[in-house]
Amino acid sequence: MAKVAQRYIEIDPWKLREVGFHEKQAVVSESLFSLSNEYMGVRGFFDEGYPKETLIGTYFNGIYEIPKDIRRSHYKGISDKLHYMVNAANIFYTRLYLGNELYVFDPKKISHYERTLDFKTGESVRSYQYENLFSISFKRLLNMTNYALAHQVITIKPLDYHGPVTLQIGLDFNTKHWGNPGFWEVSDHKDYAILGHTTTHQSVFEMFQIHVNVPVVSKHTYDQKCQTEIMIFDLNQEVIIHKDIVSFIDKAGETSFDSYLNQAQELLKSASYKETLNQNQLFYQTYFDHNDIKIEGDLANQQGIRYCLFQLVNTYQGVSEKNNIGAKGLTGEAYSGHAFWDSETYCLPVYLFSNPKAAKNLLMFRYNTLEQARKRAKELDCKGACYPIATLNGDEACDLWQHASLQFQPTSAVAYAIWHYIKNTKDVDFLLDFGFEMLVEIARFFSSRGQYNQDQTKFGYYGVMGPDEFQMMVNHNAYTNLLGKESMSYMIEVFNKYQEDRRVKHVIEKLGLHIEEIEVMKDQCEKMYIPYDEHTKIYEQHEGFHDLPHIDIHSIPVTDFPLYSHWSYDRIYRNDMIKQPDVLMFMFLYNSHFDLETKKVNYDYYEPKTIHESSLSPSIHSIFAAELGYTKQALDFFGFATRMDIDDYNRNTKEGLHLTSIAAAWVNIVYGFGGLRSDGEMLKLSPMCPNNWSSYEFTIHYMDSNIRVHVTKDELTLNVDQKVKEAILIYDKVYHLEKGITKIHVMEH
Amino acid sequence: MAKVAQRYIEIDPWKLREVGFHEKQAVVSESLFSLSNEYMGVRGFFDEGYPKETLIGTYFNGIYEIPKDIRRSHYKGISDKLHYMVNAANIFYTRLYLGNELYVFDPKKISHYERTLDFKTGESVRSYQYENLFSISFKRLLNMTNYALAHQVITIKPLDYHGPVTLQIGLDFNTKHWGNPGFWEVSDHKDYAILGHTTTHQSVFEMFQIHVNVPVVSKHTYDQKCQTEIMIFDLNQEVIIHKDIVSFIDKAGETSFDSYLNQAQELLKSASYKETLNQNQLFYQTYFDHNDIKIEGDLANQQGIRYCLFQLVNTYQGVSEKNNIGAKGLTGEAYSGHAFWDSETYCLPVYLFSNPKAAKNLLMFRYNTLEQARKRAKELDCKGACYPIATLNGDEACDLWQHASLQFQPTSAVAYAIWHYIKNTKDVDFLLDFGFEMLVEIARFFSSRGQYNQDQTKFGYYGVMGPDEFQMMVNHNAYTNLLGKESMSYMIEVFNKYQEDRRVKHVIEKLGLHIEEIEVMKDQCEKMYIPYDEHTKIYEQHEGFHDLPHIDIHSIPVTDFPLYSHWSYDRIYRNDMIKQPDVLMFMFLYNSHFDLETKKVNYDYYEPKTIHESSLSPSIHSIFAAELGYTKQALDFFGFATRMDIDDYNRNTKEGLHLTSIAAAWVNIVYGFGGLRSDGEMLKLSPMCPNNWSSYEFTIHYMDSNIRVHVTKDELTLNVDQKVKEAILIYDKVYHLEKGITKIHVMEH
Repeated sequence: MAKVAQRYIEIDPWKLREVGFHEKQAVVSESLFSLSNEYMGVRGFFDEGYPKETLIGTYFNGIYEIPKDIRRSHYKGISDKLHYMVNAANIFYTRLYLGNELYVFDPKKISHYERTLDFKTGESVRSYQYENLFSISFKRLLNMTNYALAHQVITIKPLDYHGPVTLQIGLDFNTKHWGNPGFWEVSDHKDYAILGHTTTHQSVFEMFQIHVNVPVVSKHTYDQKCQTEIMIFDLNQEVIIHKDIVSFIDKAGETSFDSYLNQAQELLKSASYKETLNQNQLFYQTYFDHNDIKIEGDLANQQGIRYCLFQLVNTYQGVSEKNNIGAKGLTGEAYSGHAFWDSETYCLPVYLFSNPKAAKNLLMFRYNTLEQARKRAKELDCKGACYPIATLNGDEACDLWQHASLQFQPTSAVAYAIWHYIKNTKDVDFLLDFGFEMLVEIARFFSSRGQYNQDQTKFGYYGVMGPDEFQMMVNHNAYTNLLGKESMSYMIEVFNKYQEDRRVKHVIEKLGLHIEEIEVMKDQCEKMYIPYDEHTKIYEQHEGFHDLPHIDIHSIPVTDFPLYSHWSYDRIYRNDMIKQPDVLMFMFLYNSHFDLETKKVNYDYYEPKTIHESSLSPSIHSIFAAELGYTKQALDFFGFATRMDIDDYNRNTKEGLHLTSIAAAWVNIVYGFGGLRSDGEMLKLSPMCPNNWSSYEFTIHYMDSNIRVHVTKDELTLNVDQKVKEAILIYDKVYHLEKGITKIHVMEH
Repeated sequence: MAKVAQRYIEIDPWKLREVGFHEKQAVVSESLFSLSNEYMGVRGFFDEGYPKETLIGTYFNGIYEIPKDIRRSHYKGISDKLHYMVNAANIFYTRLYLGNELYVFDPKKISHYERTLDFKTGESVRSYQYENLFSISFKRLLNMTNYALAHQVITIKPLDYHGPVTLQIGLDFNTKHWGNPGFWEVSDHKDYAILGHTTTHQSVFEMFQIHVNVPVVSKHTYDQKCQTEIMIFDLNQEVIIHKDIVSFIDKAGETSFDSYLNQAQELLKSASYKETLNQNQLFYQTYFDHNDIKIEGDLANQQGIRYCLFQLVNTYQGVSEKNNIGAKGLTGEAYSGHAFWDSETYCLPVYLFSNPKAAKNLLMFRYNTLEQARKRAKELDCKGACYPIATLNGDEACDLWQHASLQFQPTSAVAYAIWHYIKNTKDVDFLLDFGFEMLVEIARFFSSRGQYNQDQTKFGYYGVMGPDEFQMMVNHNAYTNLLGKESMSYMIEVFNKYQEDRRVKHVIEKLGLHIEEIEVMKDQCEKMYIPYDEHTKIYEQHEGFHDLPHIDIHSIPVTDFPLYSHWSYDRIYRNDMIKQPDVLMFMFLYNSHFDLETKKVNYDYYEPKTIHESSLSPSIHSIFAAELGYTKQALDFFGFATRMDIDDYNRNTKEGLHLTSIAAAWVNIVYGFGGLRSDGEMLKLSPMCPNNWSSYEFTIHYMDSNIRVHVTKDELTLNVDQKVKEAILIYDKVYHLEKGITKIHVMEH
């Protein structure tokens, strides 16, 4: 990986800290200092305005727009249901006037600039001094439990400036999206409150209140979708302005202005910065008590992984089964706020072993959008349900047909996630109430989309793109074939086991599932072709991959990356070069199916061909490297995963944080160095401690127990809060963990 | 082919004749009765307006627009130079008022409707009676030699109507394009004249004059881009209105209104319907004297092939090397007026053996756009020149990247066409002045786009779409590989033979062509992989084609056609189903390379998999069927080719005529039943006469001689106007044809 850190954030185990203003990283900082609480997200843009490049972004989970210039294809199956998360109001809108002159932030005139983000409170503080005139600070908070609440505190302290100051603060619905303004229509407003609508008729209501510590002359203004309070005062002492903001959304857009207003007024009565700070402190304390990952002897990765934990819980904690996890969370408009198969593949394991209710809600999102997935399958001339590549509302929102029509990992990921969730929670009710119906429709999709070869000896998927998006339209992609097979056979397994259950019976009847269909699927599973060479133990990524033109990826100039921006589009798709794990991906998902030797030869074959252009790639490779004893490589990949955004490795953090890669960082350490395996008959742990670290620890929530895992070079300490209901394999030995501490000698693996 | 004729045009050897108004075919007739003269084209829309679906289309060769809503891709190599031929002014704008009431054509109120199009004059006449009130006729002509001139004659004859009539006739720039109005800006106008500009700053100037046989009260109007003369008269005798129209274009848009005006006034002085009719008569007489195809005993095909000849010369006769042949000619806006590889592959042979100057001009179009092809190759990260899939001006105008970036038959077609042209004209000057430079750049493209497989034993093209557009992104497509090889090796052959010629030396120096490059190409040619089974003699269309899932194409319901409109887009691309010839296409182009047995097994293998969704497909198959003795199939395919538009086989003639398929109909009879082969060492003729015909004849223009070929069941008669400079193989026997008649006994082949 020719990826180089751009480090400018101070190393600190519990904070982000930017000391001195880093102008070149101004927009990167906006992303890094983003706050969110699953419900909404606010980028760390400058309250007072910033005269150069800036992305003033505030986003609500599931509030979207439909492209106006949508070019409807006359080809069937090319989705015309595109939609994207839209930038909402600037709730921290602030303008400062010294005398009559608008104050403009000027990097050359400021000093003592510092910005911090505290992982223990979610408080972001930015302060600096302007010439010798005054110092100013801006604090922000989003409430982590009372999601509609946000706060801003502005403190201005006079130095040599003693004169009139005008401060205008409020709400601005003129935010731009991808540089374009004018998405919002304001249908009603009053002093302190605005009700905005998207063109999709969803609504966002915003209201604020202000407290100032000194007397001010004050008036309201409303102009051009911008509602503000203008305050005039003499700056002869420290002035502190508290602003509390309420944001309500209605995805159906039916709530009236007055109803919003009443609720908001009620909420604001008891709202204060201090109160939210206290609530957040409690929230994060509880969170870290249960979920902290400690790394002793590696402060950079310690900061990195804590930042990941912090942003993870901010982005998603399973508050609502209508929410999902965008590739960029709520921190930018790149990837349009869409959720991908990352949710099931990279994020779900994190929640499964820390917050199973959130894991379940991620699956409920798919259950609640099953109807759209059915329609999508029909558009593709298939049966059952096909889940979208990219979505906010369940419809396919990917505007590249070659991805939307050829990639089926989102669909198999749902089946896998159900299987994975059930295996590790034993939540049979979920399986029978919701899971089975999804499984039937997914199996039907994989049954109808597949085809037999000429002599009917091989079944599989033709014209597909596997997880490795550098092979666009291939036949018998091993990943797609294997996951198709597993999806169908798991459905058949559930059918066989529970067909007498009344809920399963109901689904069978409702969907008209016949035994003949199951017989067809069985034959398809039996003949499912997985290209594999018994001699070398190498799986061929797809039929023909081995003989593709070879590229030595190290011969590609660094300036050619990212390839999507520098290579002719078609050129990317005709070499033995890989963007992200494909064969290794199914070996990760079904780790227990493969022996170490097979993993080794496939890793040794595929990793040198992989350029990791997906931010999700390094983590999976790190996990294999750890298992195979390639510890240095494992650590290198891990460092990239934990600090990808902080060190801006991909040079695109300014567009937003790589939220699902942040989830993958958790997966990386827990499955990698921690050696967790959750796909076998029993949960498995095989931790090892890299040489550079003195120790590390993490928590696995499993079957209602919290297992705190502490690992040194020699000793593994498990601290369990209550007897673990299921046996666990530790270094391949069966353990029945009781409440309390168990110590085990660390073994090589 | 599940294609059914919708016959409503009377059978007539020299005319189209619609007797009675066929409302359901109204828009089909608009296409069929189109007139054009290479310079401009006018659809057969109703002068007086038509109240239901209509496409009022007037087009100029090379006058285009650029899409306003172009969505620039951020991927390199996806063309952003899209453009399309735009609909221009309605030059036959006519409105009739009876008293104060606008006359509206009403199928229920008219009788004696008849419309004819005369292939001997290009005159189109449409007449009918309106209730018992009056009869009316509209005549049209485009001048075939004085291209700027068009004429309209309106004759109104009173029956029971005796009262005031208002006739408004003029020019209207409000025409719609794909239903959208407002493309034209009028920059200047005067009585009788308008100067319109496209947004690409090209200009079209229109002017008209009127002569009426009775006194009328007359006034000019100009309103909303529409310039008319309003004439009021009492309809108490036959009134005949002559309107002469001049259309000038300037692709650079620099000509001033006054300059246009002067030229137009000059031209109009001597312009008249009668004069143009005389000129056209002479023009078509000369044309048919040299080019007529006669079929005795098959009136339907006789009419079909004459209509093809008529529309062919109308569309292109090589007037300008800036013109090309759009897939729909100048008869509709489908395919956006773009020229495809059809020009070199299907049209060039027609001109090569009838009008070599036109063939040369088609090649000059490619020479004149070589610079754009060089830029396109760079966009694709390749060297040399890559010719566009679709273009009006030389830039790539295809908005489907999967075609524009993966199909290279346009590029190899240029090399093939140069080779084919040189072989049959011995025009070495063209080769050295223009051809070689194109060949070098084309060879460089094919050298740089190709790749070796892993062990460097196979060279070829990965990620391509061959002529068969139902296999989208494949490796080692036999056609692409073979044509790439032939393109390179022909360049090397010319280089070896002429490297001492000063023009070739100049090109070598100018392009920096090194011997090392040639050595590389030689190795590539040597290792070029053409998938072929020596045992079965079957060429595999691409690596892996033989094992693709099988579809019995006869099992596809007729209602599923065209598949592009009824199948999910991706579903089309993953079966052993073929849209149009691919292996058979290179066997057509290099016929002499393959023995009869090889042609037979490949035809027998591929034809049953072919659905002929391309209108160009049947002709090629007909040629093979004729050669293989499948005479019934040959005739069936031929009937489809000659009458595709007249009988609206594809149900889309209303969008415009299939001009390049019309060219393919000529190729069909001459190469098919006539057995012409022009790719071998000697020109070859092996005519046979299908049982259903008593005889047929056609002319081959070859090496400055016209060889009139007359074929009966038993006897072949060749009438040569001057000694043929080169020997010809007839039924595999060498002939040195002298001036006069040669008779030969017809032989089976």
